[in-house]
Amino acid sequence: MTKTIDITELCLRDAHQSLLATRMAMEDMVPACADIDQAGYWSVECWGGATFDACIRFLNEDPWERLRQFRTLLPNSRLQMLLRGQNLLGYRHYEDSVVDRFVDRAAVNGMDVFRIFDALNDIRNIRHSVQAVRRNGKHAQGTICYTVSPLHTTETFVEMAERLVELGCDSICLKDMAALLKPQAAFDIVKGIKTRCGEAVRIHVHTHATTGVTLVSLMKAIEAGADCVDTAISSLSLGPGHNPTESLVAMLDGTGFQATLDKDRLHRIKNHFAALRPRYQAFMSNIIGVETDIFDSQIPGGMISNMESQLKQQGAGDRLEEVFFEVPRVREDAGFPPLVTPSSQIVGTQAVFNVLMGRYKVMSSEFADLMLGYYGKTPGERDPEVLAMAAAQAHKPAILERPADLLKPEWEALQTAACALPGCDSSEEDVLTYAMFPQVAPGFFGKRAQGPLNLGRDPEAAAPASAGGAPTGAQSGDKALRTPVSYDVKLNGRSHRVSITPVTS
Amino acid sequence: MTKTIDITELCLRDAHQSLLATRMAMEDMVPACADIDQAGYWSVECWGGATFDACIRFLNEDPWERLRQFRTLLPNSRLQMLLRGQNLLGYRHYEDSVVDRFVDRAAVNGMDVFRIFDALNDIRNIRHSVQAVRRNGKHAQGTICYTVSPLHTTETFVEMAERLVELGCDSICLKDMAALLKPQAAFDIVKGIKTRCGEAVRIHVHTHATTGVTLVSLMKAIEAGADCVDTAISSLSLGPGHNPTESLVAMLDGTGFQATLDKDRLHRIKNHFAALRPRYQAFMSNIIGVETDIFDSQIPGGMISNMESQLKQQGAGDRLEEVFFEVPRVREDAGFPPLVTPSSQIVGTQAVFNVLMGRYKVMSSEFADLMLGYYGKTPGERDPEVLAMAAAQAHKPAILERPADLLKPEWEALQTAACALPGCDSSEEDVLTYAMFPQVAPGFFGKRAQGPLNLGRDPEAAAPASAGGAPTGAQSGDKALRTPVSYDVKLNGRSHRVSITPVTS
Repeated sequence: MTKTIDITELCLRDAHQSLLATRMAMEDMVPACADIDQAGYWSVECWGGATFDACIRFLNEDPWERLRQFRTLLPNSRLQMLLRGQNLLGYRHYEDSVVDRFVDRAAVNGMDVFRIFDALNDIRNIRHSVQAVRRNGKHAQGTICYTVSPLHTTETFVEMAERLVELGCDSICLKDMAALLKPQAAFDIVKGIKTRCGEAVRIHVHTHATTGVTLVSLMKAIEAGADCVDTAISSLSLGPGHNPTESLVAMLDGTGFQATLDKDRLHRIKNHFAALRPRYQAFMSNIIGVETDIFDSQIPGGMISNMESQLKQQGAGDRLEEVFFEVPRVREDAGFPPLVTPSSQIVGTQAVFNVLMGRYKVMSSEFADLMLGYYGKTPGERDPEVLAMAAAQAHKPAILERPADLLKPEWEALQTAACALPGCDSSEEDVLTYAMFPQVAPGFFGKRAQGPLNLGRDPEAAAPASAGGAPTGAQSGDKALRTPVSYDVKLNGRSHRVSITPVTS
Repeated sequence: MTKTIDITELCLRDAHQSLLATRMAMEDMVPACADIDQAGYWSVECWGGATFDACIRFLNEDPWERLRQFRTLLPNSRLQMLLRGQNLLGYRHYEDSVVDRFVDRAAVNGMDVFRIFDALNDIRNIRHSVQAVRRNGKHAQGTICYTVSPLHTTETFVEMAERLVELGCDSICLKDMAALLKPQAAFDIVKGIKTRCGEAVRIHVHTHATTGVTLVSLMKAIEAGADCVDTAISSLSLGPGHNPTESLVAMLDGTGFQATLDKDRLHRIKNHFAALRPRYQAFMSNIIGVETDIFDSQIPGGMISNMESQLKQQGAGDRLEEVFFEVPRVREDAGFPPLVTPSSQIVGTQAVFNVLMGRYKVMSSEFADLMLGYYGKTPGERDPEVLAMAAAQAHKPAILERPADLLKPEWEALQTAACALPGCDSSEEDVLTYAMFPQVAPGFFGKRAQGPLNLGRDPEAAAPASAGGAPTGAQSGDKALRTPVSYDVKLNGRSHRVSITPVTS
């Protein structure tokens, strides 16, 4: 009996977020959608994460309109998004009614599967959005952020899964954003969850490829009972991105597992993005190949480039090694949070500050908030001395409550502020855009009518500029088919110029 | 009980052969040797394959001197080489006494482990070199070229292993030069060999990374009992190269297997080659990431770039797809040989000819030889019609004997010819260099005194030159179709020796 393994395709969201700084324009994804829709994926991740921010900040593209377009272009597919729990797609906590409205509007505009995580694995920050998704009759996927620390054992993750199941999640995602998930750990956690929560509980596994081992981890997760794994089409895969879809399919041959995807369609999707990728050269991650130092530093790839640029701005580009040593110490002081948006940025920035100015001599307000519980409960105990410094610097006490419980109803105020902005159409969608990105939304509303930008550029400067034209390499000239091939032929010591016209067989 | 898995490091040979067209200069490897020697590898592959050819053709470096240097620099390591059986490191069959002398000199100069293969898996072409290695008291590794065809089953490979063990091989290598070895096949073959030949028979597994699945295959091979696997340090890994050493180490954590390598030394080796690699940009393979089309075309990565440059030289760069379809047909006509040097070049070049000029309208003399048995016995039946065409074009009969059995003693003649060359030092080593590369050796002997070249270039200085710099045809490690190409052409009933130089358009 061959078990079919479901696949979530990441090329429309996390793949270009990880490889091309989230810059891919909607118009560049449109031509691949028909094939993606018919390839046989369990779901297509296409929204959320950093795409919302990138749409309004860089692409002058309405993210809600992008969602509606995907809904139209992928009529047979489950659309999937990544949602940061109580943070939605922004960087602070929102009051529950804002969460409700966001989930309602995402569902109405076409979203099917909500992958919901919290950077601290604090289940209280996940709960309300799970309930909102279920109220909409959509698929709520509760997410465990995988990380490595003295506090994070198989048992920790299995317990978290159990609590997510109790919340009513339709499936569990084991999310390995930093490519730290080794094969045996993948096996043990998936097996542990299936044993504890029952075989019927669906488990999805999301890994990045950065360290080079995680395709093996997916194999082990599948052997342990995982139901669905995330991959990206090969031409948008690897490096800080994900394992290639086609390799996953090939990997399963003969193993008793199979992924029933349409290979011809995969081939076309691959060719589409292969032709497109060079157009985004300017935004491409400079991690190619693998980076196994992450196993020691636990620092995800995106965080490294971030810290690197912070250091360079301060003329201290040569102090990255020191920051690498400081990050795990800061993380320990903060109670071993997983490193994922926003905790990765908060811990990374504080490590940079510590190296440049002395340990905790300057504390970012975000790091103080993290120490004081304003992002939720960290997995372990926080260092009491650093906690006291945080309270002193931030002039506020540590809290134990769920952070959103401290928030007053805010929808009315957000609505009033948003609707006052030139270009705001007063829809709930626009209010939510403003709520999540109050600095960026005003500019976006004002310029929205000018239409989306495409930041992709023809890699060959000499090539004739054709807006939206076929990228180089895609043109199929049959000119060469008809052109005779010329040779210099030396025959019995004499040289001849011979031209040969290919014979069609 | 944790089983220790041995590792063969490839960075000094196959890694730069696969990624940098074999161009790495000895002086660029020297600084890494102390760490490589102490890292804990089972062996260090550092010689053979295309390196000998590249040394004298491009680097003005004496390959025998390179071997002696490695012997000095790696005093604690087993040195390993890749030997093409009766072809040695050249492209024709050699008479047995030449094979004896080559193996003797390699052993005397410091070689420990001889990995011996034949492109057709014809064990008769492996036998004599295995005996020569054993006579020298060195490690003879009998090699199975893995390939995929209707004729190649687990049983076929296990049977071949059995015969290699009977020959007296000290270990068996399963060699997957095209990254076609999927996980279950790896498991089944290794398990099959261990079951048939006994647990004590050492099995080494060599895979390339091109298709993205072979780290999983190594995991499965290890689970099935493989004793040693080949990897390359991460900064010289992936693409058409190999799986990263550090990822292999990480992969095994907690699995009941371990690789006991020194991580600090790995880190230094990695940094050394990471800094060096950009200097060889001009020679770098343009396959980055993975290429899973190989599963359908069975064409190894190096062969693709070779065919691509052949087509481009003839103004037919857009006909690669057609060649992809033609290669499996040519391979079937030839009795399904594995595709590895030199069969890969022979089949690939014939496929190019078939596409450009009509099926078998022009047959390379090498392809005719392959059809007629002059390379040995192909795994399956050869197409009788194509066989007849080969006999007609080559004016010689098909043979059934071991090809080397038709050769007359040739050492004296080779010695006389070599010693007559200006700059030849009359050593057996020089005679062997001449024997294997009679076109290249004279030029090399003449210029040897000028000392080695380093083709690495400062990436900033090299950037403008690299576009029109090295001739595209010379960028691949494959040699068979280097221009000019010679044919026997029958014109108006008379036979002519014709040499053809493609005109770059």
